[in-house]
Amino acid sequence: MGLTIGVDIGGTKIAAGVVDEHGTILETSTVPTPPTADGVIDAIADAVRDASAEHEVDAVGIGAPGYVDDKRATVLFTPNLTWRHEALKDKVEQRIDLPVVIENDANAAAWGEYKFGVGTGHEDVVCITIGTGLGGGVIIGGRLHRGRFGVAAEFGHIRMVPDGLLCGCGNQGCWEQYASGSALVRYARQRATATPENATILLGLGDGTPEGVEGKHISEAARLGCPVAVDSFRELARWAGAGLADLASLFDPGAFIVGGGVSDEGDLVLDPIRKSYRRWLVGSRWRPHAEVLAAQLGGKAGMVGVADLARQG
Amino acid sequence: MGLTIGVDIGGTKIAAGVVDEHGTILETSTVPTPPTADGVIDAIADAVRDASAEHEVDAVGIGAPGYVDDKRATVLFTPNLTWRHEALKDKVEQRIDLPVVIENDANAAAWGEYKFGVGTGHEDVVCITIGTGLGGGVIIGGRLHRGRFGVAAEFGHIRMVPDGLLCGCGNQGCWEQYASGSALVRYARQRATATPENATILLGLGDGTPEGVEGKHISEAARLGCPVAVDSFRELARWAGAGLADLASLFDPGAFIVGGGVSDEGDLVLDPIRKSYRRWLVGSRWRPHAEVLAAQLGGKAGMVGVADLARQG
Amino acid sequence: MGLTIGVDIGGTKIAAGVVDEHGTILETSTVPTPPTADGVIDAIADAVRDASAEHEVDAVGIGAPGYVDDKRATVLFTPNLTWRHEALKDKVEQRIDLPVVIENDANAAAWGEYKFGVGTGHEDVVCITIGTGLGGGVIIGGRLHRGRFGVAAEFGHIRMVPDGLLCGCGNQGCWEQYASGSALVRYARQRATATPENATILLGLGDGTPEGVEGKHISEAARLGCPVAVDSFRELARWAGAGLADLASLFDPGAFIVGGGVSDEGDLVLDPIRKSYRRWLVGSRWRPHAEVLAAQLGGKAGMVGVADLARQG
Amino acid sequence: MGLTIGVDIGGTKIAAGVVDEHGTILETSTVPTPPTADGVIDAIADAVRDASAEHEVDAVGIGAPGYVDDKRATVLFTPNLTWRHEALKDKVEQRIDLPVVIENDANAAAWGEYKFGVGTGHEDVVCITIGTGLGGGVIIGGRLHRGRFGVAAEFGHIRMVPDGLLCGCGNQGCWEQYASGSALVRYARQRATATPENATILLGLGDGTPEGVEGKHISEAARLGCPVAVDSFRELARWAGAGLADLASLFDPGAFIVGGGVSDEGDLVLDPIRKSYRRWLVGSRWRPHAEVLAAQLGGKAGMVGVADLARQG
Repeated sequence: MGLTIGVDIGGTKIAAGVVDEHGTILETSTVPTPPTADGVIDAIADAVRDASAEHEVDAVGIGAPGYVDDKRATVLFTPNLTWRHEALKDKVEQRIDLPVVIENDANAAAWGEYKFGVGTGHEDVVCITIGTGLGGGVIIGGRLHRGRFGVAAEFGHIRMVPDGLLCGCGNQGCWEQYASGSALVRYARQRATATPENATILLGLGDGTPEGVEGKHISEAARLGCPVAVDSFRELARWAGAGLADLASLFDPGAFIVGGGVSDEGDLVLDPIRKSYRRWLVGSRWRPHAEVLAAQLGGKAGMVGVADLARQG
Repeated sequence: MGLTIGVDIGGTKIAAGVVDEHGTILETSTVPTPPTADGVIDAIADAVRDASAEHEVDAVGIGAPGYVDDKRATVLFTPNLTWRHEALKDKVEQRIDLPVVIENDANAAAWGEYKFGVGTGHEDVVCITIGTGLGGGVIIGGRLHRGRFGVAAEFGHIRMVPDGLLCGCGNQGCWEQYASGSALVRYARQRATATPENATILLGLGDGTPEGVEGKHISEAARLGCPVAVDSFRELARWAGAGLADLASLFDPGAFIVGGGVSDEGDLVLDPIRKSYRRWLVGSRWRPHAEVLAAQLGGKAGMVGVADLARQG
Repeated sequence: MGLTIGVDIGGTKIAAGVVDEHGTILETSTVPTPPTADGVIDAIADAVRDASAEHEVDAVGIGAPGYVDDKRATVLFTPNLTWRHEALKDKVEQRIDLPVVIENDANAAAWGEYKFGVGTGHEDVVCITIGTGLGGGVIIGGRLHRGRFGVAAEFGHIRMVPDGLLCGCGNQGCWEQYASGSALVRYARQRATATPENATILLGLGDGTPEGVEGKHISEAARLGCPVAVDSFRELARWAGAGLADLASLFDPGAFIVGGGVSDEGDLVLDPIRKSYRRWLVGSRWRPHAEVLAAQLGGKAGMVGVADLARQG
Repeated sequence: MGLTIGVDIGGTKIAAGVVDEHGTILETSTVPTPPTADGVIDAIADAVRDASAEHEVDAVGIGAPGYVDDKRATVLFTPNLTWRHEALKDKVEQRIDLPVVIENDANAAAWGEYKFGVGTGHEDVVCITIGTGLGGGVIIGGRLHRGRFGVAAEFGHIRMVPDGLLCGCGNQGCWEQYASGSALVRYARQRATATPENATILLGLGDGTPEGVEGKHISEAARLGCPVAVDSFRELARWAGAGLADLASLFDPGAFIVGGGVSDEGDLVLDPIRKSYRRWLVGSRWRPHAEVLAAQLGGKAGMVGVADLARQG
């Protein structure tokens, strides 16, 4: 099979890319994300048509935010959105004349990094994607671990704190509430409220109030050495690393890959994650350690990953 | 390959069984468990020789309590014992003239149930063994999931409670501290101390004091309807079920198998585990549910499992 | 001093009552609660004028939801509202020609129960008020314990769960998030979602959906034996009782009084609170136990309490 | 009344001091602590006789580790020892011809600091004593708050973590398990095990193993800048400060006093305690803050405190 298209459904835009068998993106087309499920489907079709106008394409892969069934056809539900048993594959195939594969977006990103990114050379990889929320993907023996019903590796919703924070999924204490971009903003706002004298840099980047602090401010303030910003990243890292230690007890991969927007900060956040991971790893002195690697492909991991999964059929 | 031997290392006795390819135990030999590592190795050799005296045997599998390396040769460490990098395979092979395979005991039990017990017919199974502690085993696509370094599925030591109970592994809040036979005894003693009027049956089965309550008393008292005993099983079940819900988010198996001594209680404990599992399963209404099954092979699961793994080489 | 007025500021209405020295309410006047702070002050003045039209009144006490300063004049802040350093005493005194005393509403209710309700005969009482939120009041040696800065006994915001639920106060894990009317509704909705077959009575009282469940439905369903409703009250009671055990370690009162809307359910909720309290009381077998009493005055406790505090000047 | 004797019962020695009305210790006598309750009583009598040989003494106060009844005569129980309903006052009075007052040792220390130490000038003080365990004392309106049954201010056993660490009192998650000298040692050992490269100074002060780390090593290593030692103090301080914030919500004192061996470290531990306290204080921006003061009297606080309480009769 030759070229395929990978589609990435983001909160603000939908991107379709023509990708070759080496994971190289030859062309990209983007459209704004419509507010309704039907609108999203039309927009996907538009983006695919646009991207494929000058390329011969054999299949389309779509990375979707949510639980995808074992036929890779239906989004069963999305913890933070309203999709319920959405037959995404059929609806898109009705609009474009190409075979479609649906995959969870974090699974797609994990596959992308495994096949074309930092995971190259490993056979057993666990990937966490720390964006607004927290997603995961697992490769075992060189194959994507989808689970019996298609919904494996939903790391964001394992319970880290009994009776903990409410989650969009309806449960409490989900990992996503403690190790995600949203959590990072909460950490920074709480700390800026309690100790504003340690947050002058951070507050100066926004509108001066804790409520005005956004993710981009925290990253910049951390690079400038703002104590509250640095400490907020460390808090996120504590929770991320503790979760990786659990994942080592469960999957025992050869390597962890940390992706998503947070990984863009590099060692600022990766080093404390590694430290926390080692702190909590059971029997740390007596076992081989999986490496904790920063993702390489940035925001393109999902697109090239799902395009490759579509290529495999 | 014909007959193989499965060895089960228990706290009080070591049992070696000659097992055929259908998982039938033809003969068993047991010896007391010696207090030292070297003594254990000698005892294993004795039990194997004794069991194989009248059978032609091709290989030996040993189920060991602890983390076993990826070569299935060395026990890296045991959270609750003192073994560290114990070269069990080599030492036993020096004493008996047969190829030896080492496997984590809970992995062995999971494989036994998958191959010859309640797991028959499933391809993707997650098994928890609730004995004194809590062990786990995972079968994915009909293969035992050992992980990159051999130490996957160590469920007992995932963190259920930040800053929680101290564990023999050195960490805090491990699942094993909340869903195990030891935890059950703690629940019953605490409740019998606080509300002795609800524990008269339970206290009457022991020496009359909360400290004198043992596991067997709790089982019997629960069957007799003792409120404290029933409530103690429910507390264990709450934690067990919540953990299964996490495992569904991680592995997404087709079925869960609950084994170990606690599963002998049947629906007394299985039903509340199922209820708690459903309570905490993310998106419970929108996804297929894995069944939660009681193990069938009882204390023999490990022996027949590891004998079969040895047969496969 | 003769008659005084007690004012109760509720979410939907403001009530002013003329109260005599025996705690008897001679007359009550109510007005709807306006949406703004200034509107509330005008409404208080209106209600006071109306109630006092036919009685000679010497002073006015106002029970306010929030932290009141040591001069009993200013509401420093309210965790769940927008009042910040609101000079309530001055503003009301400018509108009516009577001396005004401000008191935290839960302190007022505690004083009412101590002086005229179930607390009569005790000298050292700790009162918790479980309404939408959770408030507290402490009487030590027959005196209301206000603290050095006026803000003692703010029980709702002690931390019960590290990294727990977000609270309106900005912290996480506050007791109010686990033992309040709001928590009760959350418990019932979560359980009705997970196990709808155990919530048929409860769901039948509302609109049939978990989201449609309200507090009044839970009370009625519990009286009808609905498992989910009964279990929701038990969950609330577990947290309430565990907190009382802490309060015993801190204040060591002669009696606890449980008031607020939840106490209207009587032993349905009081008995499990007592059980949980005993479960967690340190050294339970070796110490005298404070009784856990249900409040007697219902929604009038605050009004008669703050009227009496105003009488004392 | 003139001179009185204060007795301090420590784990290794019992000290009796003759104290005047200014809190000055005129003479001290110490004896080793015997292993049995009766032996302790004899030893107390010996120490008192010895100390009073050359002074005319009017009364004896004894600071005891445990819950003391409202008559200040009987030790009801000790969470970490075996005393149960020990009639300490009577037994000591039978041996010496002086009136005896028993007081909880942390209450005694709180009174000492209030009357003669850093608490001078305050009327409402909450004191925590961080030694091997964690004790507390409360002064309200210039009087020691003993509670209805004599057992108030037992801070060490309020629950900080649901399902947390086991405590000697039988409960789980007690504050003492997270903010005490014992906790400090646990923090340091855990960290030294996980990241030995950050603990070289600390490990060098002991026998080189994490298990060999003791409290005195952590203090010295922290002063030398050892990251693991500093971080261990910070962890203790996080829990101590969070608890102080709860105590502010409960008692609202004018000042906190932090005593016990840990306070000897001064700002090394006090500053992070203050920071954590502010972090968790509800409505931090809108209320007056109680100061967090270091105790001044060191190990003498209990002796002079209980001598003064005996003087008051």
